[in-house]
Amino acid sequence: MAEQDVMEKLVSLAKRRGFIFQSSEIYGGTGSVWDYGPLGIELKRNVKEAWWSAMVHQRDDVKGMDAAILMHPRVWEASGHVAGFTDPLVECKVCKKRFREDALATSECGRKPLLTPGAHEDCDLSQARLFNLMFKTFMGPVEADSAVVYLRPETAQGSYVNFLNVQTAARQKIPFGIAQIGKAFRNEITPGNFIFRTREFEQAEMQFFVEPGTDEEWFERWLEERHRWHLSLGVRAENLRFHQHGPDELAHYAKKAIDIQYQFPFGWKELEGVHNRTDFDLRRHEEYSGKRLEYVDSGGGKRFLPYVVETAVGVDRTVLMLLCDAYREDVVEGEARVVLALAPRMAPIKAAVFPLMKKGGLPEIAREIVDGLRKASIPAFYDEAGSIGRRYRRQDEAGTPWCVTVDGQTTEDGTVTIRDRDSLEQLRVDRSRVREWVLDGLDRGG
Amino acid sequence: MAEQDVMEKLVSLAKRRGFIFQSSEIYGGTGSVWDYGPLGIELKRNVKEAWWSAMVHQRDDVKGMDAAILMHPRVWEASGHVAGFTDPLVECKVCKKRFREDALATSECGRKPLLTPGAHEDCDLSQARLFNLMFKTFMGPVEADSAVVYLRPETAQGSYVNFLNVQTAARQKIPFGIAQIGKAFRNEITPGNFIFRTREFEQAEMQFFVEPGTDEEWFERWLEERHRWHLSLGVRAENLRFHQHGPDELAHYAKKAIDIQYQFPFGWKELEGVHNRTDFDLRRHEEYSGKRLEYVDSGGGKRFLPYVVETAVGVDRTVLMLLCDAYREDVVEGEARVVLALAPRMAPIKAAVFPLMKKGGLPEIAREIVDGLRKASIPAFYDEAGSIGRRYRRQDEAGTPWCVTVDGQTTEDGTVTIRDRDSLEQLRVDRSRVREWVLDGLDRGG
Repeated sequence: MAEQDVMEKLVSLAKRRGFIFQSSEIYGGTGSVWDYGPLGIELKRNVKEAWWSAMVHQRDDVKGMDAAILMHPRVWEASGHVAGFTDPLVECKVCKKRFREDALATSECGRKPLLTPGAHEDCDLSQARLFNLMFKTFMGPVEADSAVVYLRPETAQGSYVNFLNVQTAARQKIPFGIAQIGKAFRNEITPGNFIFRTREFEQAEMQFFVEPGTDEEWFERWLEERHRWHLSLGVRAENLRFHQHGPDELAHYAKKAIDIQYQFPFGWKELEGVHNRTDFDLRRHEEYSGKRLEYVDSGGGKRFLPYVVETAVGVDRTVLMLLCDAYREDVVEGEARVVLALAPRMAPIKAAVFPLMKKGGLPEIAREIVDGLRKASIPAFYDEAGSIGRRYRRQDEAGTPWCVTVDGQTTEDGTVTIRDRDSLEQLRVDRSRVREWVLDGLDRGG
Repeated sequence: MAEQDVMEKLVSLAKRRGFIFQSSEIYGGTGSVWDYGPLGIELKRNVKEAWWSAMVHQRDDVKGMDAAILMHPRVWEASGHVAGFTDPLVECKVCKKRFREDALATSECGRKPLLTPGAHEDCDLSQARLFNLMFKTFMGPVEADSAVVYLRPETAQGSYVNFLNVQTAARQKIPFGIAQIGKAFRNEITPGNFIFRTREFEQAEMQFFVEPGTDEEWFERWLEERHRWHLSLGVRAENLRFHQHGPDELAHYAKKAIDIQYQFPFGWKELEGVHNRTDFDLRRHEEYSGKRLEYVDSGGGKRFLPYVVETAVGVDRTVLMLLCDAYREDVVEGEARVVLALAPRMAPIKAAVFPLMKKGGLPEIAREIVDGLRKASIPAFYDEAGSIGRRYRRQDEAGTPWCVTVDGQTTEDGTVTIRDRDSLEQLRVDRSRVREWVLDGLDRGG
C-alpha cells in the first residue's frame, strides 16, 4: 500500500471506530491536536500500563513519580530551555506562512505544492529568527513578567529537581531511576503526521542515576532493555532500528544519544531516545538553585554528582506504531476485511460476546459471560446488533482478539464458540471455561 | 487532634515517606503546586483505576475518552467560561496583596494576622474587578490574539464537543455516558489546604446523556452510585455528607446540584459534585459551532437534544481524603506508631517482604517471594535494612497492609510470618501460599 493510502485509511479507521478524533472538530479542529475516543484511550492506557509495569512495578531500582506540568520558571533557565529550546523560523513574505528553516525542503508553501524540490527557491523568505518552543502562561492574578510560567516541554526536569527527595524518601542507593508518565507541550512550528508530532503529547521518561564511569555500560543495558520492550508489544522486529546521533545532531546536554526508530508509513522516525545526559542537568540545577544535589553513599561515604542515562518514549507515537504495525487488509470468505492484529495484551477489548439471536435466552447467557469476564477485570463487550458476520467485522477493526458466540447449542450442552481474530479458527468450549480461556490467551499472546 | 496538627503531620508524613513533595522545592517552591512521589503516584493511580473500573469497565453504558487540554478557543466562549468564569478580585493598596472579595473575612492581609475578624476593615481596598480564572497561552508561532488558547478549566467540554463522535463510533443509545480523567487548570486567586485547592489538578468527570424528563431520576441514581463508590474506598461513612446548592449557589448551567462533602481536618468541603446541567452545554455548542448535536433514536426516529447529568470528582481531593481518613496514631508495645490504615486495594504497596537476617539464604528466599508477587501484578517491596520493628514502622507509615518475614524457621519448614497492619496479628503460612493469601486479602478488604 502506498504511504498516503495507509495513513488516510488509518485516520479514517481511527475516527470510524472511535480510536482518535480531531480535537474540537465541530469548531473546525485545533491545529494538530487530537482527542482519544473510547477504543483509543483503552489502547493508550494499555501502552502506559505496560511501560509502568516493566519500568516500575517489576523492578527494585526504579521508582515512579508524577511532577506537575507547571514548574518554577527557574527550572527552565537551568535546563537551558529558556535560552536554547528554539527553532529557526522563516516567513514567506508572499504567502505569510511560517516555516522551520531546517525543514524548508519538505515544507508546503502557500504558492507551491507539497514536497516539490526547491519549492521556496523563488519565494521571498524573511531572515530566520529563533522561536522558543515553550508555551508560556501567567500564574496568579497579575499578568506580569514575574508570574510567567511555562508548560513543561519534557517531564525529565521534574525528576531532576526531585532527585534527592525521591532518593531519600524511597531509601534508594545509586544506581536507581525515577520514572514518569505525563503530558508535555511544545509549540512546534510544523507539527504533523497525525498523532506523530503534536503540540500536546504524552511522554514516558525514565532518568537513571549512576556513578560516573558506569554510565556507558548502563547506556547499553537500557538501550537493549527498551528495544526488548517494544518487541514485547508485538511489533515486527524488522520495523525497528537504531540510529546513533552524529556530533551535529547531539543535544547540548548529551554525551551520546541513540534513537529507536520505527518504520512508519511516512518513513523511519524516532520513537524513543536513549540519552547519556552526564551530570549536565544536576550540575545546572545546583548552580541555579544554590542547593547541593550530590549523592552521599550511606556505606562508604563516597560523594558524587550522578550521571544520568535517560530513556524517553512518546506514548502517542507508540500508539501510532501499534496501529500502523497491526493494520491489515485481507479477504475472508470472498469478502474484504480490515483487521487490527494487535497483541491481545494491547487490545482495547479482549473479548466480545454475541448472542446469535435476540431470543431463546441467548442474550441472558451472553450477558452472564460478559459479567464473568468483567469481574475478572477483563474488558469485555456485548453486541447483539446485526448479523454475526458484521459483528465479527466490527471487532476485527477494533482489534478484539476473541469473539464468543452463544447459540442454540449453548442452551443444550452449555458450549459456546470462540473465534480467533487472526487464525479465524472457531472452537467450542464450555461457557464456564471462557474466562480461563481468555486469561490463558493473554498469557500466551503477551 | 487539632486541625492544624493533623494537616501539619500529614504534610510532613507525605514528604518523609514520598507521597507528596512541594513542586520545584529546591527553587523555593511553586505556589500551591505539588508533585507526587513514589508512594503518592501509586495511591493516585489506584484511585484513578478504581474510578475507571467502576465507571467504564464494569458498565455497558459509559464509554471512556481523553480529550486534549488545549481546545479550540470558541469552546470556552460557548461554555460561558470566557465571559463568566471569574472571581471578584480586590487589592489592598497598602500591602499590595490580592484577595477574592467573597473570601476577605478569612484572608490574610500583609499587615494583619490570619483569620482575625475584620482584618481588612481599616485596609485601603481597591474596587473589586472580575478576574478570569482560565490560564491562557498562545499556540503557533505568533503571539497574537488569533492564536490565544486556554488551558481547560474542566474536562467536561471535551465530552460535549465529542458527543456525537463517541455516540456514533461506540454505537451507543441514550441513555449513555462519557467518562474522562485528566488535568484541568484554574488560576485560583487563593489556593490552599495542601492538595485540596491547587491551580493544576486532576478531575474524573462523567457526563451522562439522557432523554429530557428522565434527568431527575438519573440524577438521584448517580448521586447514590457515587456515594457508594466513595464508601467502597474504605472511607468512614460518618465523614461523608450531602450538600444541596441553594438558588444563590447554583452555577449558570445547573438546574440542580448536590455536593458530596468530606469532613477534612479543615472542615466539611466539596469532594464531588453531581450536577443536572440540562441541555445548556449542547445547546450552546450548537449555537456557537453551527452544527446540530441532536440525538436521533435509531429505532423510533425520535430526535432530541439530551439533558446531561454530570458527576465530577477531584482526584487529588480523593487522595487527600484517603490520607486524612487513614491517618492514625496508636501505641504498639509501648511505642508510638503512625499508621495509614488504607484499604488494601488503595495501598501503594500490598506486601513488604523482609529477611530477618542478611544471611543464611534468607534474602534469596525473600527475593523469590517478591518476584512471585510481582509476576501476579501485586506491587511488592523488599527491605533488609534495620531491625524488623523499624521495617514494620516504615511500612505502617506507607499504609502497607501486610508484611512477610522470612526467618530461620523458613529454611526448616518452609513457612513465613504474615503480619497484619491493623490487627497486628502474625500468622505462619507456607511460603508457597503468600501470593494466594495476599490476593484473598485484597478480595476481602476491597
